[in-house]
Amino acid sequence: MSAEPFRIGLLGHGTVGAAFATLLAERAGQVEAITGLRPSISGVLTRSRGDFDEILAGCDLVCELIGGTEPAGALVLAALDRGKPVVTANKELLAARGRELFDAADDKGLDLYFEAAVGGGIPLIRPLKESLTGERLSRVLGIVNGTTNYILTKMSEEGRAFDDVLAEAQRLGYAEADPTADVDGHDAAAKCAILASIAFNARVVSSDVFREGIARVTTEDIEFARRLGYVVKLLAIAELDDDRVAARVHAAMVPASHPLAAVRDAYNAVFVEGPNVGELMFYGRGAGGEATATAVVGDLVTVARNLQAGTRGVGCTCFLERTIRPMAEHRGQYYILLRVEDRSGVLAEIAGVFAESDVSIKSVWQEGAGDDAQLVFVTHRAREDAFQRAVDGLRELRAVEEVRSILRVEGEE
Amino acid sequence: MSAEPFRIGLLGHGTVGAAFATLLAERAGQVEAITGLRPSISGVLTRSRGDFDEILAGCDLVCELIGGTEPAGALVLAALDRGKPVVTANKELLAARGRELFDAADDKGLDLYFEAAVGGGIPLIRPLKESLTGERLSRVLGIVNGTTNYILTKMSEEGRAFDDVLAEAQRLGYAEADPTADVDGHDAAAKCAILASIAFNARVVSSDVFREGIARVTTEDIEFARRLGYVVKLLAIAELDDDRVAARVHAAMVPASHPLAAVRDAYNAVFVEGPNVGELMFYGRGAGGEATATAVVGDLVTVARNLQAGTRGVGCTCFLERTIRPMAEHRGQYYILLRVEDRSGVLAEIAGVFAESDVSIKSVWQEGAGDDAQLVFVTHRAREDAFQRAVDGLRELRAVEEVRSILRVEGEE
Repeated sequence: MSAEPFRIGLLGHGTVGAAFATLLAERAGQVEAITGLRPSISGVLTRSRGDFDEILAGCDLVCELIGGTEPAGALVLAALDRGKPVVTANKELLAARGRELFDAADDKGLDLYFEAAVGGGIPLIRPLKESLTGERLSRVLGIVNGTTNYILTKMSEEGRAFDDVLAEAQRLGYAEADPTADVDGHDAAAKCAILASIAFNARVVSSDVFREGIARVTTEDIEFARRLGYVVKLLAIAELDDDRVAARVHAAMVPASHPLAAVRDAYNAVFVEGPNVGELMFYGRGAGGEATATAVVGDLVTVARNLQAGTRGVGCTCFLERTIRPMAEHRGQYYILLRVEDRSGVLAEIAGVFAESDVSIKSVWQEGAGDDAQLVFVTHRAREDAFQRAVDGLRELRAVEEVRSILRVEGEE
Repeated sequence: MSAEPFRIGLLGHGTVGAAFATLLAERAGQVEAITGLRPSISGVLTRSRGDFDEILAGCDLVCELIGGTEPAGALVLAALDRGKPVVTANKELLAARGRELFDAADDKGLDLYFEAAVGGGIPLIRPLKESLTGERLSRVLGIVNGTTNYILTKMSEEGRAFDDVLAEAQRLGYAEADPTADVDGHDAAAKCAILASIAFNARVVSSDVFREGIARVTTEDIEFARRLGYVVKLLAIAELDDDRVAARVHAAMVPASHPLAAVRDAYNAVFVEGPNVGELMFYGRGAGGEATATAVVGDLVTVARNLQAGTRGVGCTCFLERTIRPMAEHRGQYYILLRVEDRSGVLAEIAGVFAESDVSIKSVWQEGAGDDAQLVFVTHRAREDAFQRAVDGLRELRAVEEVRSILRVEGEE
């Protein structure tokens, strides 16, 4: 007795697409045992080969592994329009046009799965959407970009400068020739938007996410962080503030004792917090064709089972209309490094500026003397706009020769 | 328009049962939004109240939160027999009689979900069963018992003895009055059996799991471990060796740089390894009524959706007939601490015994002199039976006054 076929139209055949095709062939027997369907790739679309209409007509499911917003977006919408469920690993597309895609899938009653879009092979989306339905999550905090974590790890452990490590990462293939998407936080912001959407049943797009990259992090910052008991990481943070969603991506000092501080090299980890579950962490390699392909296969097994049963997975229909909290209203802790005149009264002047802006100082530390006199401040929690006002005030002070560096501090209570 | 009811028969109303009832009431709206069904508890069975037959007749799903093998086992089987899907948090029952229960659920085409049985609120079972279907997992390695991890953490960080910390843990309610289930590794072995079953599609029961507890771990062992760069943890390990399953629970030295070494107090963490995903880790509070209740709610949402769709979740039918590898064939590294005569030639005699048994020494370290002369050995990987033979040989040596301690070493390659 031969199982019915399950025909997959594969869009894209790059690193992830090729790894997916290999893994699927390897695991076809297991997939068949679970679903009762025999999976096979019925057509492949790349820039140079394949006819999209033919592929669509001859498949039961579309696997979109092209990446980028176009032409992937148009192809996914066309697939849904023709009644085909979709599995995608496309974070940019989901973060930019998720609402449109989810609505299209809902209209047609079709599955749209995307476990591979965040954290590569780390199961994240499904635990958040399904296992944690019983929890009212309050916060998601993670290292979701392997390239920047690799760079920051090397800077921290080998004392090397950003440009130097970046160049090496590019040589080794860990960073793209154009590293902007990673280094400036665009990749992390897309993942942050997706995590925020899933965790809080909200519609959050990339442009809702406050974003700063790591290009301005210096070895000096990392050294000060170390001395103060912190490690510098690029974090993606999504929080619920009353009923508003706050989402941001930026470098931050994290206490060395925090589990995220131990996440090194190209590894990813996502912390999830809620009143009942406390803190959960999901950790693993966040990228790589093979790891990502396992997530795609996991999704397609579920879609195949749903098709067999004539149903679909947890839909995208229960989004709440949440507003986005502006970054100005964020309350956080800050580290600020100033080069200052070396004379008496300077600290009092600076403290006065902080006080006027309602920013209270947690610790201050003097370094060097004379032309090299520097002051390092770590604040208590303060509003972002108040802190920025304070920084503007400091820049106008004669005593402050240079605002050398500002970093956020996360993970302390 | 009012949603159809979804009636839950709740068996057991202890810590988890009560937390579940509270959480369900709190999240009923969310559950209804996702499933289209309005959940409510239609009956509660405890030792002193409730009629099981009435509860069964009046419910759509049974939630078994009693714990222990009986009467829970008979009740779950009766529920399945009457056509009711079951959600359970009962690790003892699943680890002892899982096969019988899964077969009963399969025969009736019913859901049997048990996310809460391992790792409390940490999503583990579903990621292993569903998200990682695409992976051929090779190993699961975890800290799955919070009580023993709390005890070992206190012993390590405060240099206190086992009995002392255990007594404190009992006073604080972190350990039971009868601590056997935790301290002797029974609880961890049950969870290990479940993890092995899920990860390897095998039928592994508690009695298949090699088991040693932590009662013989001394502060001296922990101190030696620290000096050698290790931390002592109680580990549950399930591995695939060719097509055989090996499952064991025992204290082990773990390199201080290993992510599991940083899992402190009552936290749990499970490492999962496979050729494609590499290493994944799931971390969180492994117990507690509220955390466990979130897993139960997550399961019942899925069962409710499956019922609505007239389907069931990934069944339990694709178990492979795997055999269990005997512990004698295990290959591992060992730490052994000997009190020895302080004279020349002793090391050569001991090394001779190891060599005769095919156990090769990685490092040796002498401590003290005279009556206090001690030798610490760490071996390379050796077969368990060979190592035990070597230990028997050492015990017969006149030069060896006492085999003070033996610990396994894990997490090194």
